[in-house]
Amino acid sequence: MVELERRDAERRRAVRIGNLTIGETRPVVIAGPCSVEPGYVDQAADIAETGADALRAGVFKPRTHPDSFQGMGLEALPLLAEARRRTGLPLISEVLCEADAEALREHTDGYQVGTRNMQNYRLLEALGDLGRPVILKRGLSATIDEWIAASEYIRRRGNDDVILCERGIRTFETRTRNTLDVSAVVVARELTDLPVIVDPSHAAGKREWVPALARAALAVGADGLLVEAHPAPALAWSDAAQTIDVATLADLVDATHSSPLPCPRLEACR
Amino acid sequence: MVELERRDAERRRAVRIGNLTIGETRPVVIAGPCSVEPGYVDQAADIAETGADALRAGVFKPRTHPDSFQGMGLEALPLLAEARRRTGLPLISEVLCEADAEALREHTDGYQVGTRNMQNYRLLEALGDLGRPVILKRGLSATIDEWIAASEYIRRRGNDDVILCERGIRTFETRTRNTLDVSAVVVARELTDLPVIVDPSHAAGKREWVPALARAALAVGADGLLVEAHPAPALAWSDAAQTIDVATLADLVDATHSSPLPCPRLEACR
Amino acid sequence: MVELERRDAERRRAVRIGNLTIGETRPVVIAGPCSVEPGYVDQAADIAETGADALRAGVFKPRTHPDSFQGMGLEALPLLAEARRRTGLPLISEVLCEADAEALREHTDGYQVGTRNMQNYRLLEALGDLGRPVILKRGLSATIDEWIAASEYIRRRGNDDVILCERGIRTFETRTRNTLDVSAVVVARELTDLPVIVDPSHAAGKREWVPALARAALAVGADGLLVEAHPAPALAWSDAAQTIDVATLADLVDATHSSPLPCPRLEACR
Amino acid sequence: MVELERRDAERRRAVRIGNLTIGETRPVVIAGPCSVEPGYVDQAADIAETGADALRAGVFKPRTHPDSFQGMGLEALPLLAEARRRTGLPLISEVLCEADAEALREHTDGYQVGTRNMQNYRLLEALGDLGRPVILKRGLSATIDEWIAASEYIRRRGNDDVILCERGIRTFETRTRNTLDVSAVVVARELTDLPVIVDPSHAAGKREWVPALARAALAVGADGLLVEAHPAPALAWSDAAQTIDVATLADLVDATHSSPLPCPRLEACR
Repeated sequence: MVELERRDAERRRAVRIGNLTIGETRPVVIAGPCSVEPGYVDQAADIAETGADALRAGVFKPRTHPDSFQGMGLEALPLLAEARRRTGLPLISEVLCEADAEALREHTDGYQVGTRNMQNYRLLEALGDLGRPVILKRGLSATIDEWIAASEYIRRRGNDDVILCERGIRTFETRTRNTLDVSAVVVARELTDLPVIVDPSHAAGKREWVPALARAALAVGADGLLVEAHPAPALAWSDAAQTIDVATLADLVDATHSSPLPCPRLEACR
Repeated sequence: MVELERRDAERRRAVRIGNLTIGETRPVVIAGPCSVEPGYVDQAADIAETGADALRAGVFKPRTHPDSFQGMGLEALPLLAEARRRTGLPLISEVLCEADAEALREHTDGYQVGTRNMQNYRLLEALGDLGRPVILKRGLSATIDEWIAASEYIRRRGNDDVILCERGIRTFETRTRNTLDVSAVVVARELTDLPVIVDPSHAAGKREWVPALARAALAVGADGLLVEAHPAPALAWSDAAQTIDVATLADLVDATHSSPLPCPRLEACR
Repeated sequence: MVELERRDAERRRAVRIGNLTIGETRPVVIAGPCSVEPGYVDQAADIAETGADALRAGVFKPRTHPDSFQGMGLEALPLLAEARRRTGLPLISEVLCEADAEALREHTDGYQVGTRNMQNYRLLEALGDLGRPVILKRGLSATIDEWIAASEYIRRRGNDDVILCERGIRTFETRTRNTLDVSAVVVARELTDLPVIVDPSHAAGKREWVPALARAALAVGADGLLVEAHPAPALAWSDAAQTIDVATLADLVDATHSSPLPCPRLEACR
Repeated sequence: MVELERRDAERRRAVRIGNLTIGETRPVVIAGPCSVEPGYVDQAADIAETGADALRAGVFKPRTHPDSFQGMGLEALPLLAEARRRTGLPLISEVLCEADAEALREHTDGYQVGTRNMQNYRLLEALGDLGRPVILKRGLSATIDEWIAASEYIRRRGNDDVILCERGIRTFETRTRNTLDVSAVVVARELTDLPVIVDPSHAAGKREWVPALARAALAVGADGLLVEAHPAPALAWSDAAQTIDVATLADLVDATHSSPLPCPRLEACR
C-alpha cells in the first residue's frame, strides 16, 4: 500500500465557502431540504431565520433506484439564485460528474461529493481543477484512510479547500439507517489538517434521533453539521423520515454555535 | 421472529449497585484497571480520589488466546476486600460462568457480562436467579434488538437490575479497536427502561481517544461510563494502550458529574 | 496479540465421532432436524436412509429470544437412545454449558458448540477436559484467527478431537441469513490441522439455496457438511425455512460422497 | 424504497462480447494482467494459449492512493490493437467516466465498471447510451438489491447487455482481501435474468486461494470467471500477490469449460 505523506494535523486548515469559514472559530450548521423542490426559496428563508450558516441546495440526487426522484436538475437554477439573494447564505450542491460541477459553477458556492462517489476519481480530479470548495462525504464502507486518500485526489490538483464529512457507515445494525462513526471525526482530525463535519441525518435515518447524534458530533470536536431540515418535514420530496423541522433546527443551531471549540487534538484539555 | 413485549421506556428504571444508583440523578463513572493486579489496592485508592463512583474489579478475564493473562482469579479476593474497605466504593467484576458468579458473590457488588458472553444464556439465567445487579455488554456484532433480548434472559428470572453497556461493535474499520455506536445508546433507551452506559476504552483501543468518545456518550444521554484507568497506564497488565491515567480520569469524572441529565426520550428539549 | 504456535497443517488430523471419521477418506454429511422433536426417531430413520453419516440431535437450543422454543432438553434422552439404536448413526448435540455436556455424555457421540458460544471459554475448557469430539462453530463475527484460537482452549486441555464448522458470518447483506465465507474453509485448513466442515443451512436461511452452498463448500475442500433436514420441512419446530427435505438430502449425500478429495493445500492439483 | 419490477429470471439472458457469448452454453474465463503493461501483447498471447475466452485489458486503474500506478491510459491503445490481432480474443477494459468509454470504444469489445463506480450513475447512464456490453462489478458493500438496481441505470437507456460480477464484499475478516459472497451468485441469478460471473482474484487477495474460490463460483452456477493472470505474476505491475500464473490458469480454464451447466434456478436437479 502506498503511504501518503502525513499532513501536518497540528496546523488545522480553515476552508471558506462563500462568506462562511469552516474550521476556524466555531462549529457551523449547513441545513436545508434533502433536495431542492419548487418551494425551495421560502424553505430557504425559514432555514436562514434559524441562524444556519449555509444552505443545502442539491439539484442532482444520486438514488439507488432509477425510478426514484433524481432531483430537479438545471431547472432549479432560478430557485438557487433567488434563495441566495433572499438569504445571503452560501449554497452547497451535490455533483455527480464534471459536467454537473461546471453547470453549477456560477450558481453555488461549494460542491458536495456524496458517499457513492467518494472513489469516483475522475470527479475528484475535476473538482481539484475547478478549484471551488468541496465537501467530501465518507464512502459507505470506506476506511478513514481511504477517505483521506480520496481527498488527496482533489488536493494533488492544487485545491486544498476540502471538508471531510462523516455520515454513518454501513454495518450489520438495521435500527439506524447507518452507524454514525464518531471516532472517525477524532481520528480524521488527527491524520489530516482538513475540517471534519458530520451529517447526523443520513446516519440516523429517523428525525427523532438527529439532535442526539448532532450533539455527539459536536462533543468529539466536529467542525460543523450538515443537516436535512424542512419547514414541513413530512412533505419533503425525499428523505422525509430523517428531516427535522425548523424549530428543532433552531435549537441545533444554538447548541452548535455555543459549543466550545475543541482543543486541536481533541484530548481532554487540562 | 418472536417479538418481545415492549418495556415501558417512558418510565426509566434505576439500578442500585452497592451504594450507587445508576440511571437516576446524574451519569456515573465506573473505573479501574482492566484486571485486578497485585497493586490493585493502591490503584483503587488513587481512582477513588478522582471521584469515580465505582471500581472495575475484574479477576476473570476472557482472552482470545489461551496463552494470554487470564486474570488473577480467586487469589485476588483479599485485594477486593481491602480495596472495598479503603475506598468504600462498590466493586464490579466480570464473570464467565455460574461458578464464577457464586465465588464472587460476597466479594463484589455487581457482575459484568462481557461482549463474548452476551448470548451465553446459561450464564444469563444463572445471574437472573442470583439476583445481583448485572452490567450486560453488547455483543461484538449483536444488533440492538438481540442485546435487549439477551437482557430478558436475566429479567425473566425475576432480576430487573440490568444495565446495558455499549462498547463498540465490529466493523470493517481498523483504525479504532471497535466502532463506538453512539446511536445504540439513543435507540436502546427508547426500546427499554434499562439504564445504558458506555465503555469508551474498548471502543477506542487508544487512550488518547477515550475522552472524546466519553463526551460523545454523555452527549447522547448515556447513564454512565465504564472506563479503564490506572495510575501508570503503561504498566497495566492488560489493555495498557487504551487505559487512561488518573489525571485524565479526574477530568472525565468532573465532566460526567456536571453533565446535564438528558430528557427521557433524548430529543432536543425545548 | 499473542501468537499461537502454528499447527502443522500439512499433516491433517482426522477426528472420530462414534463410528464415523471426519477428515479422512471422503467428505461426510451430518444431517437432521434443527432440534429434536417428539417425532425424532422416525425422522432419524428417514434421514439415515439417505446415506447420511451422522445425526443432528440437538436438545438444547440457544435462542435469541427467551420466549422461543428452547429445545426438549433432557426429556428427549429416550428419543436419542432409540434413534441411535434404530439407525446405528452417531449423534451430535449442541451444549451450552458444562452441565449440559455432562448430562448428554452417555447419550450422544459428539458435542457441538454453537456460534454464540464460540468464545464461552469455560465451556470450551470443560469440553477439553471431557475429551469427547467437539464441532466448534465459527462465531457470528469471529475472524478466522479468533476461531482457531478458540479451538486451542479445547486442545490445551488435551482434547484434539475438534472439528471447525463455518456457518456464515454477519455482514450488511440481508437477502441471506448470513454470508457463507467459503474462503474461511480454505484459510482455516491452511492454518490448522483440524477438519473443517460447513453448515450451509444457517448461511442460506432459505432451503432452496442450501444445495448450491453445499456444492460450494465441497468445491473448496470442506471435510463435510452439517445440514438441517426433515421429512416434512414445513412442520419443523424450528428453522423450518432453511430445512431441506429428505429427497434433496439424498442428492446432497450422493454428491458429497462422490466429491473428490481435495489436495491437502487446496491448490489446483496438477 | 422503490421496488423494481422483477425481471423474468426464468428466461436467462445471454450477452455477447465480441465473438464470445456469456450466459449460454458453458461458463467462460476472462483473464489477463490486472492492467495493461508494456509487455502486454506477449502476455496476451500466452493467456490465449490456455484457452481463455477473453482478455482483461485495463488501461485506466482506479487506485485508492493517487500516487499508485494509474494504468497506461491511451498510450496503451496500440498494445490493445496488437493483442486483439494476435489472439483474436475480445478485450474488456475498465472505464471510470464517459470520456474513457468513448476513447476506448473502437479499441475494446466490452466495458468493465469497477467496484468503486457501481453507483456512479452518470457513468452507468452513459454506458447505457453507448450500447456496448458492460461487466458491472458489485460495490464493496453493496447489497444484492442495490447492485441489481445499479444495473437498471444501464438498462433503462436501452442497453440490456449487462453482466453482473461478484468480487468479494467488505467485512471484518482481514485474512482475505475481501469476503467472496458465493450466495450472491445464487440470489442474483434468481432475481435477474442477467449472467453473473465471479472475480476470485480480488476476493482472495492471494494467488494460492484463487483456484479454490473459482471452483466455488462454478459450483454455485456462475456464468464465468474474471481472473488476474500473468506469465510472471511476481513481475505484474499491480495486484501481483493475487495474480495466478499461466499453468494455473490453464487448469482453471479446463475446469471451467468442463463444468456442467447449472440448472436455471440452481436447485439440485433431480
